[in-house]
Formats: sequence, structure tokens, C-alpha cells
Amino acid sequence: MTKLLYIEPVVSEMVGEWTRYLSQYKCPETEVVVTSLPEGPRHLEYYSYGALVVPRLLNIIKGAEKEGFDGAIIGCFYDPGLREAREIAEKLVVTAPAEASMHIASTLGQRFSIIVGRTKWIPLMRENVIKYGFQDHLASFQAIGMGVLDLQVDPEETKRRIVQAAQKAIEQDGAEVIILGCTHQFGFYQELQGILGVPVIDVGLAALNYAEFLVNLRNKHGWYFNKKNEYLSPPHEEIEAWKLSDLF
Amino acid sequence: MTKLLYIEPVVSEMVGEWTRYLSQYKCPETEVVVTSLPEGPRHLEYYSYGALVVPRLLNIIKGAEKEGFDGAIIGCFYDPGLREAREIAEKLVVTAPAEASMHIASTLGQRFSIIVGRTKWIPLMRENVIKYGFQDHLASFQAIGMGVLDLQVDPEETKRRIVQAAQKAIEQDGAEVIILGCTHQFGFYQELQGILGVPVIDVGLAALNYAEFLVNLRNKHGWYFNKKNEYLSPPHEEIEAWKLSDLF
Amino acid sequence: MTKLLYIEPVVSEMVGEWTRYLSQYKCPETEVVVTSLPEGPRHLEYYSYGALVVPRLLNIIKGAEKEGFDGAIIGCFYDPGLREAREIAEKLVVTAPAEASMHIASTLGQRFSIIVGRTKWIPLMRENVIKYGFQDHLASFQAIGMGVLDLQVDPEETKRRIVQAAQKAIEQDGAEVIILGCTHQFGFYQELQGILGVPVIDVGLAALNYAEFLVNLRNKHGWYFNKKNEYLSPPHEEIEAWKLSDLF
Amino acid sequence: MTKLLYIEPVVSEMVGEWTRYLSQYKCPETEVVVTSLPEGPRHLEYYSYGALVVPRLLNIIKGAEKEGFDGAIIGCFYDPGLREAREIAEKLVVTAPAEASMHIASTLGQRFSIIVGRTKWIPLMRENVIKYGFQDHLASFQAIGMGVLDLQVDPEETKRRIVQAAQKAIEQDGAEVIILGCTHQFGFYQELQGILGVPVIDVGLAALNYAEFLVNLRNKHGWYFNKKNEYLSPPHEEIEAWKLSDLF
Amino acid sequence: MTKLLYIEPVVSEMVGEWTRYLSQYKCPETEVVVTSLPEGPRHLEYYSYGALVVPRLLNIIKGAEKEGFDGAIIGCFYDPGLREAREIAEKLVVTAPAEASMHIASTLGQRFSIIVGRTKWIPLMRENVIKYGFQDHLASFQAIGMGVLDLQVDPEETKRRIVQAAQKAIEQDGAEVIILGCTHQFGFYQELQGILGVPVIDVGLAALNYAEFLVNLRNKHGWYFNKKNEYLSPPHEEIEAWKLSDLF
Amino acid sequence: MTKLLYIEPVVSEMVGEWTRYLSQYKCPETEVVVTSLPEGPRHLEYYSYGALVVPRLLNIIKGAEKEGFDGAIIGCFYDPGLREAREIAEKLVVTAPAEASMHIASTLGQRFSIIVGRTKWIPLMRENVIKYGFQDHLASFQAIGMGVLDLQVDPEETKRRIVQAAQKAIEQDGAEVIILGCTHQFGFYQELQGILGVPVIDVGLAALNYAEFLVNLRNKHGWYFNKKNEYLSPPHEEIEAWKLSDLF
Repeated sequence: MTKLLYIEPVVSEMVGEWTRYLSQYKCPETEVVVTSLPEGPRHLEYYSYGALVVPRLLNIIKGAEKEGFDGAIIGCFYDPGLREAREIAEKLVVTAPAEASMHIASTLGQRFSIIVGRTKWIPLMRENVIKYGFQDHLASFQAIGMGVLDLQVDPEETKRRIVQAAQKAIEQDGAEVIILGCTHQFGFYQELQGILGVPVIDVGLAALNYAEFLVNLRNKHGWYFNKKNEYLSPPHEEIEAWKLSDLF
Repeated sequence: MTKLLYIEPVVSEMVGEWTRYLSQYKCPETEVVVTSLPEGPRHLEYYSYGALVVPRLLNIIKGAEKEGFDGAIIGCFYDPGLREAREIAEKLVVTAPAEASMHIASTLGQRFSIIVGRTKWIPLMRENVIKYGFQDHLASFQAIGMGVLDLQVDPEETKRRIVQAAQKAIEQDGAEVIILGCTHQFGFYQELQGILGVPVIDVGLAALNYAEFLVNLRNKHGWYFNKKNEYLSPPHEEIEAWKLSDLF
Repeated sequence: MTKLLYIEPVVSEMVGEWTRYLSQYKCPETEVVVTSLPEGPRHLEYYSYGALVVPRLLNIIKGAEKEGFDGAIIGCFYDPGLREAREIAEKLVVTAPAEASMHIASTLGQRFSIIVGRTKWIPLMRENVIKYGFQDHLASFQAIGMGVLDLQVDPEETKRRIVQAAQKAIEQDGAEVIILGCTHQFGFYQELQGILGVPVIDVGLAALNYAEFLVNLRNKHGWYFNKKNEYLSPPHEEIEAWKLSDLF
Repeated sequence: MTKLLYIEPVVSEMVGEWTRYLSQYKCPETEVVVTSLPEGPRHLEYYSYGALVVPRLLNIIKGAEKEGFDGAIIGCFYDPGLREAREIAEKLVVTAPAEASMHIASTLGQRFSIIVGRTKWIPLMRENVIKYGFQDHLASFQAIGMGVLDLQVDPEETKRRIVQAAQKAIEQDGAEVIILGCTHQFGFYQELQGILGVPVIDVGLAALNYAEFLVNLRNKHGWYFNKKNEYLSPPHEEIEAWKLSDLF
Repeated sequence: MTKLLYIEPVVSEMVGEWTRYLSQYKCPETEVVVTSLPEGPRHLEYYSYGALVVPRLLNIIKGAEKEGFDGAIIGCFYDPGLREAREIAEKLVVTAPAEASMHIASTLGQRFSIIVGRTKWIPLMRENVIKYGFQDHLASFQAIGMGVLDLQVDPEETKRRIVQAAQKAIEQDGAEVIILGCTHQFGFYQELQGILGVPVIDVGLAALNYAEFLVNLRNKHGWYFNKKNEYLSPPHEEIEAWKLSDLF
Repeated sequence: MTKLLYIEPVVSEMVGEWTRYLSQYKCPETEVVVTSLPEGPRHLEYYSYGALVVPRLLNIIKGAEKEGFDGAIIGCFYDPGLREAREIAEKLVVTAPAEASMHIASTLGQRFSIIVGRTKWIPLMRENVIKYGFQDHLASFQAIGMGVLDLQVDPEETKRRIVQAAQKAIEQDGAEVIILGCTHQFGFYQELQGILGVPVIDVGLAALNYAEFLVNLRNKHGWYFNKKNEYLSPPHEEIEAWKLSDLF
């Protein structure tokens, strides 16, 4: 049994929908719990919103580790707090959508494009593409001109723009795979995949399955984040002495 | 049930050992069949040996697809014929050790080193590192000065050299993860992991679990190699007209 | 008159010393105020410590903007919260030591080496090197094998190791400039510069003078962070509606 | 006297035309023999077709070496089997069109564009651009939407599309040199060069003259592929013991 | 008091205008002298024109050092002779517009575009972008189709084209900052900044203020070009013995 | 008949030796004339010496074009004035040692090392490596600690150090090919090649043969530097009007 925690790092009313959605795509032996934040922003379009939620996110992750979860997924395509979470985790696997979807996309085809809402999102996402090493595999970003909160206003218009942006990415930028960096429309990737004839990555599902994969590697082989150097956890004495414990 | 074919793309007497080894690490619902070539070279240290075995490998892969396998693993760290196999496959998942282990290693730590037998192997392996996009994640290659056939002569000496090379990679080159590009010593990665305290990737097992992961993605989401452009299969009429059928 | 706030983003007893030190190197028309955190970690060697202090740091920066400061310096070589601070700032200039010292170093010579305490620090610092675009200008990292808190234990031993590491960087790695990513020994860069005969960057002073430079550009030309897209501030209504105001 | 073998690595009826064409552009002291395959595919648009022909190609190359040829040219812009051929060759020079034309193009101008038939060809060609190190010199790929076999159907239409693609490459992508990765229209590069006013590389002729150049370097200076490590030939004993001899 | 020499490395009638313009933007304690060449070309659109003026430029720089100037600015966006000038300087700071404006632009936003006159200028400017390490920060070059001498013919048309090119850079290429690589229209950057809402760098002013910054670093910290290796000055004996003295 | 001018861009007493040396390695139909400068520096170890000789070099090149030479070689491994010479040339081929030897070396093996005299030379040579696009093919620079004028003092010591540096490059840095960036010891490359067993490039000979190759391409195909944009020559009227003619 693999127990995963999917954290929406925002205030959200979608916990139930996400639970149902992820449950359709998890492995039989996986149990997925979805959680979100009790207070804070409702989206992370701004860098500073991301920074605000990370301490709380780390707290949730620390709790998940204590409660015996096997893995945690940080459910935002900016992958906020991923590095930090891996550092405080001692055996919990942590992953996030951008990392997961780029590993998958670059295996399915040479170059991928990322469909985003607003151009505002691109600089940080590009930083992540470079950080993870997939710069040569990036065909382009294509923005549809909508903020997170706009995406649900007229779902048909959102879809129409996504289709258009993806077609442009394929024809003009040479994308072999599409990463949907901007939608919460459950299941739309399947429809889009049908229209385009190329793989379309739903980043939440990518993260779910990548987490299952990483837990499997940890269990079978002990392959886990480097805890001797890069992701070395802070010492417990320091945390106590400095009273950081309520933060973790 | 996931049915995988692990192909040793050489003449080998290790089919039984590989079957037992892989069986220990596969998922419960996976069935792994191991096969090797009836004739040809016994290792692929030379580029040209690799080229010689690829047509036969493609034939085996075509056969595996017809027999209903879900995935095939090309069991050599040069990943010979990977691109070609994906092109002829129509629904069979294909992967290989270098690809699989670099995706895993770059998730577990920022930089990895690859332990190889002879410096002769490095140019092609470096090409693959660059091709897969992991150049910024490569700390170094470290060669232990042994050809494939030497590796089994004095297993203790081999291990001693690998330990030394890996320690050099960690201390001198800043490796956070070690990829064992040169051993068939079953299970040695566990021992080495204990000695070094950092993740050590057994590339055959990495490929096995990556294949399971990719089959899962295909089954759940239809995420499969781009067959519309990059991995478009050759047309059947052409294959027939030019009598290439015995080759595939 | 330029008013700058230098923030030690940790609990620190050095506020007085930093004030005196920075005052020696500021421009006549600059006023520098130094502040630190009332609670939290005493160093940021861990990614997660960095994440914990960023919200508080943003709060301080927001406050500095309201109080009429012209610029703020985030006094840690990891540059924590730099991007986020620029986003919430509306006219306040924000900079940090890694950014400042790499711009300077790459102007003074083709390649620089960064002297660090522990190898643990390197992955994040390398990410910053890449993020700021100075990868081709990086000769090497050289670690002296000391954590932040060890640096003050035996100052002579610390200096000895830094000299050794810097000489290795110059002779072996081809560094033309040395960046001191690991010392709080006030003024030691001058001594080291005398020994080595190459420029040695004190990262705190680099940040101070870079902040003065950026404030000058803002005042003279209106050259300020792109606030239309990349560093667009979050809307006030959202901050109020979601009660994020105590966080900023 | 320099004796070169130009191998069309497909079944072809153009051997005579190629012989006449190459003869116009060779050096006086060069003799060029053209050959093709007795069976197999008629083009190499598919990765897997390329893999099928390589063993036979290596056989031809091995034969050419024995017969005293000085150099061999692998006449396909994918450069199939180039690395392998260099490994088995012991004194025979081997080159191929992509390598040759990119060295020439990057000498004549800062950035080149490659005109291709179908977008399907781009991923492998881009891999070669990166492998040979010319990524910073690549302005773009421009596809004319035609497969190899379509190119001869309506030669005027083909030319029209090539002109258009090349003009787009120059005006829009900043190409200073055009590489014709897609035509067998003998001599058309001259016409195109007249229209565009920039160098247009015929890749077959580039390979011919690059082969002459490399043979000259071998003869004059002993500059030949590194046979001590990277292109070390497989040992004869192994080839005999494993009965690989009919393959080489 | 900081004494700077701004050298227009061409024959120019704008010395007076430049003096007035720079004086508006210098620091109070800076004195700026503008000079130009007595004979030679009137612009440096051609590589060879640049080469012709460098010896004379070095002579002027040598003179400036002797006369007690603190810094010199080479007033051309190709940054001609920058490296050479730093080599002969012994304590004089030297900088140039491309270097200065790229350091500033990459601090203000992730990616910048450079507006140029003719596409002819792009190859050398791109070389500089790569040389200085800002390749990942380059969004694009946009050419307005005008040579240096055309720029003043119809100033309104010039402005119209620059606005258009800059808007294209922002919307199409994702530029966060605009560098004006092509105008001598004093003060126009302010107007453009108002229209576009993103920072617009006037490269002459960037160089002026970067020179002030570098002089400040030299005075305060002794941070100066590496004179031990990269910018080591030629020995005086050699210069005398070979009668090069009239050149320096 | 191909007529080449080899220009030693310094004051030299070796014109006779160079003539004899080059004559041994030229093609039968080539005529090589060697020339040097009547006054100026005797080596180009300093950037500024390079700048001083370029105008005179351009003058010689202009003269060579008028006299009917087919090609000119700029005989210094810094490749001074290469770009400028190509711009003023209208049909004369121009090349230089660094360009020529890197094209050759990267064809003969994946990675090359460059043996230099002093570390002072490395920054500019690295710039050229990057500019020509061979950064991924560079294994290392190895300096032997000798200036140009020291190289001839004790030829045996020079050789000993070169052998040692080359062995280090091969064993430690993975070089497959050695480029001799620092010797004028005629013919020594052959001896070194015998010792090391890998290709060793004499950069003067590389330039000679590359010039012959480029002249051949020009004559056969009209493949010449892009004269429409990148290497567009300055207009004659401008040269006359500004009295630049004595310079060209």
C-alpha cells in the first residue's frame, strides 16, 4: 500500500473533485489523500504568493511524514518548495507537476511546448525548465492570455484557446508533446490528445504517477534523494534550540 | 498484468540470472521475460557491434509487439536502437538503461557521475547525456580501466575499483548520485549504496522500473511516443514493396 | 540622499558590526540601516531555513518601502526571496549578494571561482549561477569544509583554508576573480586580495554598492524592474480579500 | 591519386547520375566510384530504415578499405553509420554530408538554416547539429512539406517551395548560409545561390570535397581519426571467435 | 571627484551634444569629457572600420590614463577595443555600452531584446551577447532596416520603426527589457519607456553610469580588472624595444 | 594554380623557414608566399599587440586581393582580424589557425585539448572556441608555463613540457585530439603524434590546408563568405569620402 498526499498549496474548494479525479488514475495499491490550505491565497500566479505558502506547505509535509505517508505531491506547476520539502523529508518522497511532466514529456518526444495562462508565468517556469535541465527539449511557451481565475469563467473559450495555442506550438514551434501548464479542467487532456494526435500531459496526473514511481524506487532499491549533502536535513538540535519546531 | 521483454542485445549465458534478478525487483503485476541474441557479439563495447545487433533487435521488438508484450527494454547502457525501436513500435513501450537511469538520477540529486569500464565508452555515452538533455546534471565520467569481459575476472578487484571511482566522483567532482554504467554484478549497487551513503543506480533495474512506469502512463492516459511526427512508423506498403518485412 | 536597508535574514548579534562595516564603504550620500530577524534560524545553510524566513523578509521589505527607503539588500549569498521581493516592491530597489558579486566579477575577468563553506551549499548556488546566466564565467566552486557557525571558531584556520582554496581556484581552475561566498570576516577580502594579486569580492559590499548603483539608475532614468509582466505586483484587492495583508 | 567511394545507402537507380555529377566537382587527381545497395529501402526517412542499412554499409566500407580506397562518403544527410564506420576503418577516411556541410557553412557565415522535406526529419537532424557542436550556429530548420519520394514528382513545385523556405530562413530566422538538406536536384544549388545571393550548400558535393580534404590531411600529416580510444577498432580475434567476419 | 572620458570612436560633430546629454545624467561628483577622432570613419557599421579605429582609441586611452582620468567609455555598441583597452590600462577603468547595458538589463528582467539598425550588425552583437554570458537572457534582436546614417534622416520615421520593433520584441519574443542598440536620439528612451511600460536602456547612459559604478568599486575596494593574468599589461621594455610606444 | 599568402602578423625573421615548411605540405598546384610585418611587435601575446597589427594586416590582405591571390592565412592562433579581413575581401578566401584546427580536430575525435604557452592566452582562446561553436568539443586547455619568446630558448625543455601537458590532457581531461596552440617548432607535431598515438594538429599546417580547401570550394561552387549581410564590404564611396583608402 502506497499512501500519497496531494497538497493543493492554496485555499481551494476543489479538494473533493481532485480526490475523485486522482482516484481514477492512481494504481490500485495507492491511496491518495488531497488537502489544501485553510487560509492564504487562492492561486499562486505571483512569486510572493508562492513564498507565503511554502512554510505552511513544509509543515504539512513534515506532518505527512510523521503520519506515515509514503509520498507528497506539491500540486502547483511552479513546483513551489520542492527543494525545501526534500530537505526536511527523511524518507517521504516529494515531487511536483513541472518536474514530473517534463521528465515524461522529454521521454515521449524530442521537444515539448508548455501552454500557460499569462505571459507573467513564463519567467519562473523557464527558470524551472533550465534548472531541471530540459532547455534543449523546450520548443516554446504559448500563453492563452488568461489568469488562473479566468480559466473557469467560460470553459469553452478556455478550451478553444488552448487548442489554438497547442496547434501553434506543434506547427510553428515543432512541439512533439504538449504540457498543459494552465488548466484545471479535469480530463480535458484526453479530449485535446484526440484532437491533436500528440501526447498531451495533464500535469497533476503526471505528478501523481511520478510520485508512485519514485515511491516504488525508494521501496525496492532505497533510491532516495541524496541526504548526505544536497538534501541533508537540518539537525534536530538546531531546530529545537532556535524554536523552529512549530514551523516544521 | 504488464508483460515486459528484457532483451540482452548480445549473445549471453546470463538469461537465467537476469530473469531471477529482475524478478526480485519488478512489480507484482509485472511479468518479465528475458531474451538474448542467438549469434553475434558478446558485448557492445564497439560502436560497430552495436550497429550489427540493431536490426536483429528491431526484429525481436516487432515480434514482442505482435505477441502482446506491453514493453521492451534494450539491456545495454549505450541504449542502442532505442529511437529506431520506438519508431517501429505502434503501441509497445520501449526504454533503455541510460535514459531511465539519468531521469531517475537527476531527480534524486543535482549532479550525477557515471562509472564506466574503459574511457573508450565515454564519447558515445556523453553523446547520450547531451541528447537526453542532462549535460548540466553530469558531474563526471569515471573510468575504472576494465573492458566488459574483464569485469567478471576478479569481482573483488572490480568492486574495489568501482568504490574508489565513485568516491572520487563524490569528493572531487561533486556527484550527488552514482550511476553504475559498468557492472553486471547483481545486487552490488545495494552494497555500494551502503558504503557511499548516496543513491547508486543499477541501470538494468532502473530500466525495468522505468518501463513499468511508462506502460502505466500509456495504459492510464494514452501517453505514448509521438507517432504523428518524430516516431511515425514507416508505412506498411513501403515495407512490403521493398521486401523489408523479414527485417522488421 | 539614498536610504538603504541591509537585512540580515537571520537572528544575528552582528547588526552593529555590519552597520559599522557597511558605513565605511557606502557613498557619502547613502544612509545604511541594518536589521535582522527577531526570531528564526541563525544561518541559512538549509534550503528550508531560507523558505522559513522569506515571508518575514517580504514583510520587512514591504515596510521599508512604506517608510521611504530607496533600496533593500537581502544579506545572504543564496539571495533568498529576491524575485519575490522585487514583485511586491513598487519602487523600492532590491538586490542581493550573489547577483551583485557575479555581475561585478564577470566584468573584472573572464572566469570566477566561488569559495564556499560546505559542499552542501553548492547545488543551490550553482542554480543561481545558471539562473543569472553566468555559467560560462564560472571556473569552479571550492569548498573549505566548514559550516557557517564553524567559520568564526578559529578565524586563522578559516583564513588559511580560504587562501588555500583560492590559490587552487586560480592555479588549477583558471579563476581570474575570487568571490568569497563564505566569510563574515570583515575586511578579510582586502588582505586576501593582497596575497593573491587578483580581485577578491566581498559579497556584502558588492551588494551594497550594486544597490547604490541600481538606485541611481532608477532615479536618473526610471530604470526599474519590469513591473508590467515579470515582476507585476499582486493586486491590492486580492491581498485584502484573502487577508494576506499581515503577510506583506 | 585519391580514390573515393560514394555510397548511396539505399536501393537507387541514380548511380550513373551521381557518378557524372560528382565527377564535375572532384579534384583532377580524385577518382570517384558510386555504389548503392542491392536490396533494402529506397530512402531513409525513417530511423529504422537507417538502422537496417548500416550493417551492409559497414560491409561495403570494410570492402572499400581492402580494395585500397582512400575515402568513403555515406551519401545521406542523416549521416547514418558514420561513427561506426570510422571505428572499423583502419586507414580509410569516412565522412558524410551533414558533418561536411555544417563545417563549411559555419565557416562561411555565423548562422545557417537547413531546408528539409518533412518535419519528421528534424529531430534526428537536430541531434546531429548538437552532436557536431553547431547548435549556436543553427538559425532554423525550414520544412517544405514533402517526403523524399515527392521531391521528384513536380520538380518546379519543389524548387518553388525551396526558394520560399530559404527566403524565410534568411529574412525571418537570420540565416547567413543555406544548407539544402532535402534535394537530389543536381546543380539546383547554383541556381538557388543566384536567386538568394547567399551561399547554398549542396550536401553531397560538400561531402565529396570534405572527403578529399580529409584524405589530404591523412596523407600529408597522418591526421586520422583517434584510433587509440574513441574509434579503436574491435580486435580481430574477437571478430573471428564470434564469427562476425561476414558482417564486417 | 571622478573624471571620465567618453570617446566617440569615430569622426563626429556631436561632441557638444554628447557632453550636454551625459552631463544631465552623471553623478554630481563626476566630470565627463567627450572626445572623438580627428580622422577616420563616421560610423562603425563595418567590422573593418572598427579595427581601423582601435589603435587610435588605445592611444587616447593611454593618454587619458596619463592625464589622470579615472575611467574611459568606448562609445559604440560593438564595444570595440574593450578587451585591449583593459589590458593596456593600469588603473584606468574602461567600459562600453553593450557590456553595461546587458548587465543592467539582465538585472531588471529575465530576457531582453536588442533593437538594431540593420541585420548586418547582428552577428557581431550576438557574439558579444555570448561572450559576456547573456545568451540565455536574450529574447531577440529586432532590426528596423536602417543604417547608422539613415537614423537621423527622418527622426519621426525612425522612432515609429523603433516603437514597432520594441512592441514586437515584447509581445512576440517575450522581452521584459528593451536595449536601444541603434539610436542617437538623445532622450528618446524616456519617451519609449512611457509608451511601452517596460525599461528601455539608452546604451550611452548605461555605459556612463556603469563607468561611475566601476570607478567607485576600484576606489573603495581595489576591485579592478585582473592584471595578473587575463589583462596583464605588456612589458614596458618590449614596447620600447619594438618602438610600439607611439601606438600606445 | 592556387596562390596563397601566409601572413605572419608580426615582425619575424622566420619568413624563409616558414616558406620552406609550408612548401612541404601544400598541394602541388598551390603556390605559397610568406610575408611578415616590417615593424611592430614580435609576438601577439597581448590583446593590444593584436589590435595594433590588424590595420596593417588588412592592408596586406587588400593588397593580396588586388595582386590576384586566391587566399590569405593569418598566421596566429588568436586569429586576429579574421572577421574584418573577410569583410573587406571580395573574392579572396581568408582563414586562420584556430578556426582551421578546431574544424579538423572536432572531425577526428569528440574532444580536443589545446596546449598553450601561458595561462594569459587562455581567455581569448576560449572566447574563440565558444565563438566558433566548439565548446562542447573542448576537453581542456593545458599551459606549459612559457611565453612565446621562451619557447625557442631550450627547445628540448619546451618539447618535454608539451609532451607532459598533452599526456595530462589525454589521461586526465579525456582529449582525443591535441591542438598545438603554442609551438613554432617545425615538424614537432609528427614526433609528438608518434609518442602519444593520437592526432596532433600543427595549427599553421591546418590553416594552410584549410585555405586550400576553402579556395577549392569557392572555385568549384562559388561557396564564399556571406557578402550580402554578415561580411558585406564597406562601400567604396564611403572609403573615399572619408579617406580611409590608405588604410585598406
